[in-house]
This record gives sequence, C-alpha cells and structure tokens, in this order.
Amino acid sequence: MADWQEITGGVTAPKGYRAAGITAGLKPSGLPDLALIVSDVEAIAAGVFTTSQVKAACVDYCRQRLQDKTSARAILCNAGQANAATGIQGVRDAEESAELLAKELNISPELILLASTGVIGQRIKMDALRSGIPKLVASLSETGSDAAAGSIITTDLVTKSIALETTLHDRPVRIGGIAKGSGMIHPNMATMLAFVTCDAAVSSHLWQQMLSRAADKSFNSITVDGDTSTNDSLIALANGQSRTPAITEMGAEAEKLEAMLTAVCQHLAKAIARDGEGATCLIEVQVTGTHDDLAARQIAKTIAGSSLVKSAIFGRDPNWGRIAAAAGRAGVPFEQDNLQIKLGDFLLLENGQPLQFDRAAASAYLKQAAIDYPVVDLVATNNSNDLSGDRSNIKTQRLDNPVIIAVSVGNGHGTGKAWGCDLSYDYVKINAEYTT
Amino acid sequence: MADWQEITGGVTAPKGYRAAGITAGLKPSGLPDLALIVSDVEAIAAGVFTTSQVKAACVDYCRQRLQDKTSARAILCNAGQANAATGIQGVRDAEESAELLAKELNISPELILLASTGVIGQRIKMDALRSGIPKLVASLSETGSDAAAGSIITTDLVTKSIALETTLHDRPVRIGGIAKGSGMIHPNMATMLAFVTCDAAVSSHLWQQMLSRAADKSFNSITVDGDTSTNDSLIALANGQSRTPAITEMGAEAEKLEAMLTAVCQHLAKAIARDGEGATCLIEVQVTGTHDDLAARQIAKTIAGSSLVKSAIFGRDPNWGRIAAAAGRAGVPFEQDNLQIKLGDFLLLENGQPLQFDRAAASAYLKQAAIDYPVVDLVATNNSNDLSGDRSNIKTQRLDNPVIIAVSVGNGHGTGKAWGCDLSYDYVKINAEYTT
Repeated sequence: MADWQEITGGVTAPKGYRAAGITAGLKPSGLPDLALIVSDVEAIAAGVFTTSQVKAACVDYCRQRLQDKTSARAILCNAGQANAATGIQGVRDAEESAELLAKELNISPELILLASTGVIGQRIKMDALRSGIPKLVASLSETGSDAAAGSIITTDLVTKSIALETTLHDRPVRIGGIAKGSGMIHPNMATMLAFVTCDAAVSSHLWQQMLSRAADKSFNSITVDGDTSTNDSLIALANGQSRTPAITEMGAEAEKLEAMLTAVCQHLAKAIARDGEGATCLIEVQVTGTHDDLAARQIAKTIAGSSLVKSAIFGRDPNWGRIAAAAGRAGVPFEQDNLQIKLGDFLLLENGQPLQFDRAAASAYLKQAAIDYPVVDLVATNNSNDLSGDRSNIKTQRLDNPVIIAVSVGNGHGTGKAWGCDLSYDYVKINAEYTT
Repeated sequence: MADWQEITGGVTAPKGYRAAGITAGLKPSGLPDLALIVSDVEAIAAGVFTTSQVKAACVDYCRQRLQDKTSARAILCNAGQANAATGIQGVRDAEESAELLAKELNISPELILLASTGVIGQRIKMDALRSGIPKLVASLSETGSDAAAGSIITTDLVTKSIALETTLHDRPVRIGGIAKGSGMIHPNMATMLAFVTCDAAVSSHLWQQMLSRAADKSFNSITVDGDTSTNDSLIALANGQSRTPAITEMGAEAEKLEAMLTAVCQHLAKAIARDGEGATCLIEVQVTGTHDDLAARQIAKTIAGSSLVKSAIFGRDPNWGRIAAAAGRAGVPFEQDNLQIKLGDFLLLENGQPLQFDRAAASAYLKQAAIDYPVVDLVATNNSNDLSGDRSNIKTQRLDNPVIIAVSVGNGHGTGKAWGCDLSYDYVKINAEYTT
C-alpha cells in the first residue's frame, strides 16, 4: 500500500511555490511557450541532466550553477528553441535570460535554473523572451501549475502533472511535478523535461542522491525510440516550507520521502512514455529472475525499446517471438530453457518453449489497453490513411491499463521494470514532417 | 583502386561449387523456400553467429559442428520457420535435416551446416523437407546460385548476390556470396543469413580470423531497427579448387584475399541495409577524427540506427540537429565545438555550430538518393496512403547512390563506416501485420 495520497495542484501543491505559463511568442504556433516556477524562499536544488556529448546551453548552465550553489529560487523554461549547438551566443542568451528574470524577481541570477526545449540549432527568440518575462512574473500564482505544465510542451498531446501528499512527524509533506516529452525518449534521460517541487526540509547531498535513484527507476527506465536529447533535464527543489524537521540522513523518514519522490517521477515518466509520438498505448515490461536489479532493468528496457515488439503491439499481435528475441539480445546471460513470457494473464512461453494460447483473447487484451485511443483493425483495412487515426481530440491518456509484458529468465532475485509505447504510422509521420 | 573485378555467378562463381533452390512447401506463400550449396570437395569452413541468448537450433548445431570439425561440404537453408524456441524437438529436427541431406549426397552428416529463417517458435515442416530434399539435390547445378539466393529470402524485396575475382600467383581466385535480410538488422549479426564460397586454399584458423574481421566491417556495421535475431549466421567455405598455394599466414596474398572477402561481405551487408523493411534509400555514415576505429564505428552505427535521423531522411529533411544528437549519445567522448557534419557535399555544421546552407538543394540531394523508389513529397500531400508508395514492382535496388552523412568529431586518426536505411510508414505496416 502506498503511504501517500494523490492531491491536486501539481508543482504548486507543496507549500511556498508559485508558477506561471504564458505565450511569449517563442513558438511559431502561437501556443504557450514560457514557464516559470518560483519558491518563496531559497530551496535545496538537485538535478539530473543529459549524458549526451552535445548539450544545450541551459544544461551546461544548470550543471555549473548546481556545482557552485546547491540552492535556487526559480526555474525558467522556454519551449520552441532548444538553444543547443548555438555556440557562445547560445551561452550568452542563457545567461541573459537568467539576468532578466533575476532583475524582475529582484533576486540574484545565481538562484535561477534554466531549461529549454524545441528545435536544435535555433537560438531562443530573445526579443520575445525579453518582453515576455515581466508578463510571466506578473502571472505567477499559487494555482499556476497547469499554466506552467501547458507552456513547456512541444509535440506532447497532453500535459503531465502529479502531486502526492504524505505525513512526516504528523505534518503534511507534499511533492508535485510537471513534465514534458513525447519522443526521442531513451533510458539515459533523453529528451524530456521534468520539474519537481517539494516542501520538505532535506539536506542537499541527500536530496541529490534521492533524485538520482528516483530518476533511474523512472525517467531512465522509459524508452520511446532510443534517441537521447541535447536538453534533458530533471530539476527538483525542496524548500522546507512544510516546517517538518530537516532530513539529513537515510532512515524511516527519508525512505518515506524518497518513495514518494520516486512515485512522482514514475508517474511523470509513464505519462511521457504513454505520450510517445504516435503511441496508442502504454507498455510496462516487468522482468524477474536475474542476478541483480540492474540486469533485470536492462532486459526490460531492451524489450520496451524493440521496434519489432512495439510494431507488434501496435498491430495487437501477441508476438512472443519478438519479445524472446529482444530479451536474448539485451546483453544479460541466461539459459533460454528458463525463459518465461506472459502477456497480461496469458502465459505464452514456458521453459523456453511456446505454449498453446487463445490468440484471439490475447489480441483482445492488447486492444483493451488502447481504449482511450481510436483502435483500428489492421486485418479489416488496408488503407493506411485510416490506420493513423485522428489524434486531434485526445485530451487525456490513461496510465492505469498498460499492456503488461512479464518476463522471467531464471531463479535470481533481481527485478526491474521499464515503460514504453507502441510504434505506429503516426510516429513516422510526426518525425518525417517535423521541420529542422 | 580495388584489386579485383566483379563477375557473375554468385556462390557458384568460384570453382567446385554447385547450388540449388526449390519450392518445398515450407512457406505458406508457395514461394521458393529450400536452398543448398555444395562444394565438390571438403572445404575449410568458418562461421560467425548471433550473440543472442535465445538461439535457433541450427545456430547451436553449426557452432558445435565447427568446433568439432573445421571443414564442410554443404550448407542447407530452409526459409519459412526459424526453428528457434522449439526446444529439444527443434534440435532433433535440425539433426534429422542434416542426416536426410547427408544420405542423399552420400556423405557424412558432420559435413553439413544448417541455417533457418522465418517465424520464431515454429518447427520446420519436416514432411515438406523430407520430400523436398531429393528434389533439391537433383536440382544442384553450377549455375544454381540465383535459385539458391531466391530460396533463402523472406520479406526481402530483392535477392542479394555478388561475386568477385582476383589473381593469386597468376591464377584466378574467386569469392561469391548470397544473403538474405530486410529487417531486425542490428550491429551484432542480427537477423540475416549470408553464405560465402571461395576457391582459394587457406588454413582454417586464418579463414576464421579473416571472416570475423570482415563481418565487423560489414554485417556488424549495418543497422535497420536495432533488433538482433535468433538465427543470424554467416558461413564461409574455402575449397582450394583454384589450385593456388595454400595461404597459412598473413602476408600480401592473405591481405589481398581478406580485402576481397571484406568487399564481398560489405556488398551483401549494404544490400541488406538498402532492403530494410520499408526503406526507400541506403544511408552511409562516415565518421572520422576519433581516437580509434572502434569509436568511429560506434558513432557511425548510432547515427545510422537513430529512428529520428532515419525518419528525417525519409522526409528528405536535412535535419543536422538529429545527426548531432545521435553522435552526442553514442558513448564516445568528444568536444562539441569540434563537431562537423556534412550531408553529401553540403556542410551543415562546423565547429559545433550550424551554417547557412541551401535547404532546397540539400533536400533535393536526399531525393536523388531514392531514384529507384517512388519518392513522395511530404509537403504536397497529407494522405499517408499515398506516402507508402507501391513496392510491389521493385526488382532492383541501387547501392551506388547512398545518402552520405559525413561526421568529424576531432583530430584523431580513427575512421569508421556504418550503413542503414530510412524509416518509412511501410516499416511499421510490414512489422505490425507480420503474423506471429
């Protein structure tokens, strides 16, 4: 049983946070494109960033800031231009963004963290940013989380938001989060942004450790297409405004907080995987029986990332052969005679050999996982135009009915999960047409 | 300048080989599905096989055979059923296949090597095989290479075949090869079969070394979708019938032979990449400036395997940002300020920063690479049914006009190449509809 409850409010659910999101004119579409999260007081700040050799200016900026100073007051995020591969001018633009906001908030620029998402190689439209920042700060509100969540998305179909509450020393403690991402999502913190707020008091060293572990079990365990971005950033603030005693070492209170932080990150990560470009369903891969958890997660990620598995799920085809092939190439040694594969409640493979199963019922299981999306019958139509479906009206995406692939490879105690989505015609369409 | 010339004849071009391909009734489609290559005399045999933990019975069979005995007379290949994840009965079927053929050829079963391709989890249709083998042996011919090449393919649109000739000690020496593969193709010998014949005399140890190195520079440097198969096999025979002196150690003659072997493997590998499921063009990625060749090949493979790069090429979009992002996440450290990217003759990025370039001309360059395929204008149409194109009449695929992506990451002396193809609607269609 989870030791917390879901509440409303996103990143402004924890005490002492305000947020805002506006249309500054950065996106050619005219949709909201500038977001801000502000803590009333200096908050402990931790971050996990892309491991790519090609990084956006904001990533270098944040890494440096967090190295120099482990607290922050604000996170500024622009959507539209990635400000990656923009050279020294991109660095100057990032610095100027922080300075502009600092002036408007009347704080030191070193208390500001930055994130960008959009087209690689394009500088931030600084004129629009300059005129947008005063408006952005004026829009800050204790109910501004949804506006912020709506201003950081790009090709996302839905916004991603969550808030959870637990009690520490009989006082409520909350963690909220918003995220964006719907493609290029890879185990190593690929193109996604996530911002987490917390009102507990926790030491900076511990907060960074908790965040790194939570990232491994969430954002680093999702995959959409194996591509990693230049801009991936997960930033988490903890401002102590819950007035609970400071947590400075691991123990029952710290474990409770970390579990809730992990749950927030997992919710956001699953929402990103579910919103993978062109996806029609969420896939959860559960692996057991390995020597350790790392190996299990490695197998789970390989299965969740297999284009052939993803295509089969889109075709609602219970193709255990592709699952077995993906497990086999994950780089984790196992005896193929120990391999067991389940799809939902259907046992498809045992002792490395296929079983008889009700193929129609298994296919129906795959179809029910996509009930919030127009499901098409690939057998009944040869018109690929029909197959792509109309996504324009999708407002919500359920996360509670994923396709579950459960794989066991032996008798070890290692377990691991990974999340992904299916591969559809729309993935190709979106990515072939997206302008450089 | 290459030290050889292309000749006709495929695997029967070298002296002392016969081949055959027939319809035995293994494939539901009624297309040719059983192939045989026979050397008149015992040939030195080498092999490279899948590294997957889940392997077909034929892979285990060949590994064991080549461990016990480094020579062979024949390669038997069935298409239709992969005979993978078929347990002990699959092993018995493989052994019976070899015994049936040995009896018909009047040789020892241990001189026979096996390969299978098709649906994972399905046993070979042994009744069809039993009645097919006498017919297959009766069809053996010195001009049978094309029939064999046509009997090992599954979703391939075209057959893959090559033969080259050089001279050693003033005598002609030939290497021929046939291959199959059009999906699930990954750097680590993924689902592909390739059979190579050679009439040089070479020691078994050296022949295996040459083949392993050639595989790294060819089949292990292509990627279609990152999936690796249960059945990948590259088998090469050298029967000495050219009557040239035996090559037993590295030297000028050995290098000449290895270079030609590598060229044969590269031709077949490129043909497989070009025939990737749904592909409209071949992509060649050339990487320079790394510390060593391995690092360069690693970056090249990551770019060639990026779904986002592949989608952009399908959309004829000169999207250098995705190429930079893929290079950055390859796991090879470099300074992003040293990054240079060229697309054909168009320099897109230098010193890590984008340059002005003629976007229309660069897009036109991408379009010319697909002149043997119906190219569609993604901007002009919103009908994804049109975009898929009609592939039914494709008979040949040009390999001489790939899209060339050239990337430099520094001043090191390492170089490497990889080959892939673009990602189209048809990839999803083929893989969503292919029956388990």
